[in-house]
Amino acid sequence: MPQAILTLNAGSSSIKFALHEMEPGTRPRRLSHGQIEDIGNAPHFVVRDADGATLTEQRWPSGSALDHAALLTPLLDWITGHLGVESLVAVGHRIVHGGNAYYRPVRLDPALVVELARLSPLAPLHQPHNLAAVRAITHLRPGLPQVACFDTAFHHGMAPTVTRLALPRRFTDEGVRRYGFHGLSYEYLAGRLREQAPTLASGRVIAAHLGNGASLCAMHDGRSVDTTMGFTALDGLVMGTRCGNLDPGALLYLQQVHGLSVAAVEHMLYHDSGLLGVSGISNDMRTLLASSDVHAQEAIDLFVFRIAREVGALTSSLGGVDGLVFSAGIGERAAPIRAAVCARLAWLGITCDDDANAANAALISTPDSRVQVRVIATDEESMIATHTINVLYPTSRATP
Amino acid sequence: MPQAILTLNAGSSSIKFALHEMEPGTRPRRLSHGQIEDIGNAPHFVVRDADGATLTEQRWPSGSALDHAALLTPLLDWITGHLGVESLVAVGHRIVHGGNAYYRPVRLDPALVVELARLSPLAPLHQPHNLAAVRAITHLRPGLPQVACFDTAFHHGMAPTVTRLALPRRFTDEGVRRYGFHGLSYEYLAGRLREQAPTLASGRVIAAHLGNGASLCAMHDGRSVDTTMGFTALDGLVMGTRCGNLDPGALLYLQQVHGLSVAAVEHMLYHDSGLLGVSGISNDMRTLLASSDVHAQEAIDLFVFRIAREVGALTSSLGGVDGLVFSAGIGERAAPIRAAVCARLAWLGITCDDDANAANAALISTPDSRVQVRVIATDEESMIATHTINVLYPTSRATP
Repeated sequence: MPQAILTLNAGSSSIKFALHEMEPGTRPRRLSHGQIEDIGNAPHFVVRDADGATLTEQRWPSGSALDHAALLTPLLDWITGHLGVESLVAVGHRIVHGGNAYYRPVRLDPALVVELARLSPLAPLHQPHNLAAVRAITHLRPGLPQVACFDTAFHHGMAPTVTRLALPRRFTDEGVRRYGFHGLSYEYLAGRLREQAPTLASGRVIAAHLGNGASLCAMHDGRSVDTTMGFTALDGLVMGTRCGNLDPGALLYLQQVHGLSVAAVEHMLYHDSGLLGVSGISNDMRTLLASSDVHAQEAIDLFVFRIAREVGALTSSLGGVDGLVFSAGIGERAAPIRAAVCARLAWLGITCDDDANAANAALISTPDSRVQVRVIATDEESMIATHTINVLYPTSRATP
Repeated sequence: MPQAILTLNAGSSSIKFALHEMEPGTRPRRLSHGQIEDIGNAPHFVVRDADGATLTEQRWPSGSALDHAALLTPLLDWITGHLGVESLVAVGHRIVHGGNAYYRPVRLDPALVVELARLSPLAPLHQPHNLAAVRAITHLRPGLPQVACFDTAFHHGMAPTVTRLALPRRFTDEGVRRYGFHGLSYEYLAGRLREQAPTLASGRVIAAHLGNGASLCAMHDGRSVDTTMGFTALDGLVMGTRCGNLDPGALLYLQQVHGLSVAAVEHMLYHDSGLLGVSGISNDMRTLLASSDVHAQEAIDLFVFRIAREVGALTSSLGGVDGLVFSAGIGERAAPIRAAVCARLAWLGITCDDDANAANAALISTPDSRVQVRVIATDEESMIATHTINVLYPTSRATP
């Protein structure tokens, strides 16, 4: 009977999970994964094996308003039935925001949950859902150890000059600063890069996590030096439905001239902007790449331009760049996007190997490229499982 | 009796002016300049000659609420007395925003003033004051030709991908896009660079207008390719009292958690942020450089870091950089700031000549610096006078 770690990434409309087998001294092995989708409407729970085959599935009727405990019950029941009642030894959670104080994975207890709930205003669209899942597990399995892994933690070492916003000091003092996100992904990528290209990993590398959320991280010797997301996950690159960088004056204009409420602007900037807003077609890069609509091309061009522009900014923060890593959905699979970004970065001495790029190869730059360009599949769940094991079983240290 | 052009740059708290003699076929010669300060409180009007000596001066008592016509009357009277009644042949205005439609200097008439007033929501803190000065001159000297010179015009040729914000298309269609500002300054600098270093001027140059307002402009062959200010003059670099780049999520937070109104946030981001907000001491770089307070140093560090970071971003937009030009108050006179920016840009191959830099020399990079670094004094008034002459007297074309 394996000892298994459940990882949870609980959002507003879905809960993603994975089950990893604990293997002391090495990386945890993924057993299965899945999600509970369409929460709040017609929830759908599915578990898949490592090859993607469906292991179990459940649908609730439309209009089912279920809380996290009701949604997670079939998952825990399935784990018990599948692996045995003693097999689940811990749950690791992705918690978006650790604020200033929490920058290491930490075992959760009720007092800490209260503490982390105080950070909800810093990530109103994520933090409350993350914590609801923690409370649900506490309710369903009171004795089961739970660990919080913070998406901000990897960026904790960024210099004060990098994290500071040019606001009156009282706001900086209360925590209005740049934090950065996608930290679990970047930490995982830094680990893989250390294995695959150790010399490069000790140099200056810009990693691009390009999914529906998208950001860049400038790393020096595996540590975060700068990143494009800021106080919230709204800042930086153009994303599927998020605006990224936005002149604060434009936000004021939308409120003053269009009379939009704060809530309406927030909803628009998080859900109706980005690739979807510019194209008017889709937030899905595959759809845009397949489209012949000029608006789809405009959205793609803007996405690529802003990545290249921010690579320049982060190169300045690093004082030069030795490597570029593409990751997450778009970064791992959209060869035309990688090619377009590399073309805009020719000034850095980047030369893309077209064949390698088309094949989604691990190394997609030519041998004479001054900057090595790599593709690495990210795995935040594996990182959460690793941290969870290391917090709870420090002697059987798993490698990230 | 000279033919003189009056230039006006009318803001909320001051009106800056200069008087230039029209000299066909060459750059207009500055005769005198000055300002009306502390409008709305205790206005103070002063005219100085080319050497800075006071020519005339007038103070109003505290609490004097004078309109633009009342404030400009002593200036027009002084010009008549000083130069003769026929000498003033035109007034040129700095108009902050030309929107999508106005990107060339243009002679003003009442219909155009109405049209430009429609753009006031795009620059609420500047445009109404600019136009109030136009109306005041129309009232005081009905027959006197007036010309509008737009601060956005120089950036008109930026590519759509550069100007686009990742918002729903309907906002882009109504003009919510990046415009860029300080265009009269950059146009002047491009002209001086063409004289001083013609080969460099035809290449890729980043100009840094670092005054109380601050921005960068990426120019290729003297044309704007990208810039750090956006829809408004609030975006981009850290400024004296403005925040520059700000995560839109931080702005939402300030409203949601602190309950600040849109007007209160706007005032804070324009007037209480930037160097003043971070240092808690002053918006004046001279004061901060002279201070031993750690908060002053933090403000300076942030100012420099953000310039270097944005130089990286604009270098990406240009596909490399051949020259860097410092200008405006801080750029022309704050050698320690230039040195710190250049040090952060060593990765671009920039080497600063410390002696030349300390002397505010025209060329401050070493001979082997891969990027030429120059200091050029800007003169927006001269640019306005030139445009005004060229609009009204196209046959006696002045050179910019």
